[in-house]
Amino acid sequence: MNGAEALVRTLVNAGVELCFTNPGTSEMHFVAALDRVAGMRPVLGLFEGVVSGAADGYARMAEKPAATLLHLGPGLANGLANFHNAQKARSPIVSIVGDHALPHQRYETPLSSDVVAVAAPFSGWVHAARDSRALPEDAARAVVAAHGPPGCVATLVVPADVAWSEPSEPAALPPLRKRETVAAEKIRAAAGALRSGEPAALLMTGESLRARCLETASSIAVATGARLFCDTFNARLERGAGRAAIEPLPYFAEGVMEALAGTRHLVLVGTQAPIAFFAYPGLPSALTPEGCQVHELASPAEDAPAALEALADELGAQEAPSLELATPALSPSGALGPASMGASLAALLPEGAIVVDESITGALALQPATRGAPPHDWLSLTGGAIGQGIPLAAGAALACPSRKVVCLEGDGSAMYTIQGLWSQAREGLDVTTVILANRSYAILQIELARVGAGEAGQRAQDMLEIRRPDIDTVKLAEGLGVPASRASTAEQFHAQLAEAMAEPGPRLIEAVI
Amino acid sequence: MNGAEALVRTLVNAGVELCFTNPGTSEMHFVAALDRVAGMRPVLGLFEGVVSGAADGYARMAEKPAATLLHLGPGLANGLANFHNAQKARSPIVSIVGDHALPHQRYETPLSSDVVAVAAPFSGWVHAARDSRALPEDAARAVVAAHGPPGCVATLVVPADVAWSEPSEPAALPPLRKRETVAAEKIRAAAGALRSGEPAALLMTGESLRARCLETASSIAVATGARLFCDTFNARLERGAGRAAIEPLPYFAEGVMEALAGTRHLVLVGTQAPIAFFAYPGLPSALTPEGCQVHELASPAEDAPAALEALADELGAQEAPSLELATPALSPSGALGPASMGASLAALLPEGAIVVDESITGALALQPATRGAPPHDWLSLTGGAIGQGIPLAAGAALACPSRKVVCLEGDGSAMYTIQGLWSQAREGLDVTTVILANRSYAILQIELARVGAGEAGQRAQDMLEIRRPDIDTVKLAEGLGVPASRASTAEQFHAQLAEAMAEPGPRLIEAVI
Repeated sequence: MNGAEALVRTLVNAGVELCFTNPGTSEMHFVAALDRVAGMRPVLGLFEGVVSGAADGYARMAEKPAATLLHLGPGLANGLANFHNAQKARSPIVSIVGDHALPHQRYETPLSSDVVAVAAPFSGWVHAARDSRALPEDAARAVVAAHGPPGCVATLVVPADVAWSEPSEPAALPPLRKRETVAAEKIRAAAGALRSGEPAALLMTGESLRARCLETASSIAVATGARLFCDTFNARLERGAGRAAIEPLPYFAEGVMEALAGTRHLVLVGTQAPIAFFAYPGLPSALTPEGCQVHELASPAEDAPAALEALADELGAQEAPSLELATPALSPSGALGPASMGASLAALLPEGAIVVDESITGALALQPATRGAPPHDWLSLTGGAIGQGIPLAAGAALACPSRKVVCLEGDGSAMYTIQGLWSQAREGLDVTTVILANRSYAILQIELARVGAGEAGQRAQDMLEIRRPDIDTVKLAEGLGVPASRASTAEQFHAQLAEAMAEPGPRLIEAVI
Repeated sequence: MNGAEALVRTLVNAGVELCFTNPGTSEMHFVAALDRVAGMRPVLGLFEGVVSGAADGYARMAEKPAATLLHLGPGLANGLANFHNAQKARSPIVSIVGDHALPHQRYETPLSSDVVAVAAPFSGWVHAARDSRALPEDAARAVVAAHGPPGCVATLVVPADVAWSEPSEPAALPPLRKRETVAAEKIRAAAGALRSGEPAALLMTGESLRARCLETASSIAVATGARLFCDTFNARLERGAGRAAIEPLPYFAEGVMEALAGTRHLVLVGTQAPIAFFAYPGLPSALTPEGCQVHELASPAEDAPAALEALADELGAQEAPSLELATPALSPSGALGPASMGASLAALLPEGAIVVDESITGALALQPATRGAPPHDWLSLTGGAIGQGIPLAAGAALACPSRKVVCLEGDGSAMYTIQGLWSQAREGLDVTTVILANRSYAILQIELARVGAGEAGQRAQDMLEIRRPDIDTVKLAEGLGVPASRASTAEQFHAQLAEAMAEPGPRLIEAVI
């Protein structure tokens, strides 16, 4: 058995069932092995950012890693932006990257590059395999590293000759690391803060945003009068009618400062004290209010769900959680915009939907409008690297084939990984992509003023608008095999969304707003 | 004046007239400065790989750098694959990358990353600016570094506060470095080898592939009986009817070995001794024949054109160069394929056309078929990172607005940076994109067998074909604002190409082969 086959067998034995690929010559032995090993489903992306983003979406919903297969340094480079997002989401991914055969690496060739150096800035673990016999153990270690906790992108660089050489045998998976238990004094300290009678808040992200944990956190908040926040951008938030309510911190620094004003105790659950997304002249980066004490209940590597349970016990918090009320179903009419779109989404989202949000400025309306929609998962752009939505939706749909995925996409953001629609079509994924076509990088039009760069002149404006020509995402979708339609009024959008929610399979709606 | 404005003024004073951009919040002061400084034309790309690839195309034809403007580590990451190609082409590019404000960099934020580490593997020069007063000098040094020789991607990381801070003043450009003069003994050694009477060859790339140098090299070859080769992939080759003939080395290792068999002296002009593109089991990486002496006439940093003149003088070579004959203009009929397409191109390419070749397997027929076409430039995929063609064509068209650009694109390769069509449309560029739609990564179907990975099973085949669904590049082009048509016969292709050659402006032809 050659290294490639033993590698694939090791991954399958370790529970890795899916491999998102965009391979080249140096990965051909891995590709060939896919037909010799049962249990590994390959999914082709036409661009590497689709591959990495889909693996992130899969990991967030499957709670285990998929593999990715990319080609040398430049192929990996194309996948890095979504690996960045995955790293910030703490998503487990086993990233396999081919390299030139070891004896070939000493030469300068068109495709030579330092693959380890390319991977390092966006990986939690990197290793370059050197020998076909050791390769399966390398792969098993990559799986362990990817799982964390916290999860990360574990990159295994596989030279072509390590893949094609024999002998090799599959390796067993070492035990996965468990989440560390939170020390009792951290629980007592958090309890003390929450019992102090002074204004307090919990700030959470990660696993604690699953419905059951949220109920515990909400009970604690109700019992102690603390407020309950989550990060602005979360890998996965279970929300909707009947679930415990939680406020995401606002995006802009001023909003965070306002939300937290007066807080004297901030209890962190799987996250850090709030930092501004960008720096602005005259505004602080660290947004914890002056005089507020910060208490870490659980670090991202620690067992936050158990810590929340222990904290509730310590506090004797048995109060009912504060649940989100169902939003009355409306059928909006008139002008189309994020507000009316939010109403349509709230009315039409099926229970159990997975919402992928890369609507950027659109989210300012869409997110609050849907908090009382039927229970759903909300997946955010965790790393700020746009071009995440379409691939993330594909990966989530592969992890949860029985759930509807709705991808809310800015028209600017959609253009970074539009190729992902083709993978949605090929795999027949149940994803409805909604393009918010405002023909601009609207967030930058806001940020230009906020950073004090003054009025946009004509040249600046040209860099912030994506007009001349307008992009026809209906044609783009159709060109990639995804049925599509355009909505220009609230009624049209509502009708098209209703149709998309009723029918399985990929679909795109261009909402001209 | 703030740092951003002084930076832009410094670049303009240094002869940088064009900036390819895909900016974000941290680059807003640079964007705003574009309206305060005359002489810098910004060109927006919808994806960073368009930005970096267009800068490469511009550099190859303008022979000077454009600037690029990208957003933080992930934005830069999306541009790296085409920076890789640019590095291998030795194209000068001044890559400006925004970073978080310096006081903000100590925090973990969604977009935090190590920008210098991201840039390093694909840059010839990297510097992180620390102060608005020093920024313009940093920029001037970047321009000098980009020019080389040899040219490179010079990356200047600009923290947001360095851009927005005052005071700052434009800096003058230090003297550019000159190409080093080749030592007389290298010229004598090459002359000795070529006069030895033993089988000899010249192997060239870089500047020596311009028409005048080629004539000198051809005179030398005719005078001495040496054969004349260029690299397989060259940044820019001036070729066509009436120009000195030169053979590109074949792509596959076996072909190179066959071409060079029996050669006893190999004279290198701006390149290195031939190395296989990929390693294959049982084949060598270094392809210089056994017993062949290698003589470097000029390194990539040295003045190859002057060295060729000196070599011709030393040899007293005054023979007429061997010129390419004009190919008779044919109007092919019947089935459409690379052979018939080559005949149409040879007949219809206008004099002075710029051909961007990312046709991969298509080039095996297209390249020889067009050697006797009217004089034109041929720009190759220098770094093997696919997704170069469409952006490269845009950049070349901006550098040479009076010349027709023809971009020969594989359908697989086109999908990596298809967004570049929109920039072609917005800027009204005279580019005809020809998509060779064979619905597969045809090169990988060949390579799978060549690396000894055996027969492709169904799963492997699915990774090498891009069917189910077929991609409709006509719709993609139209969706991005580029008029497009589909050709399924040789007659249709000929007629559509004739129309495209006669009309200025962007155009796409999907050739179903």
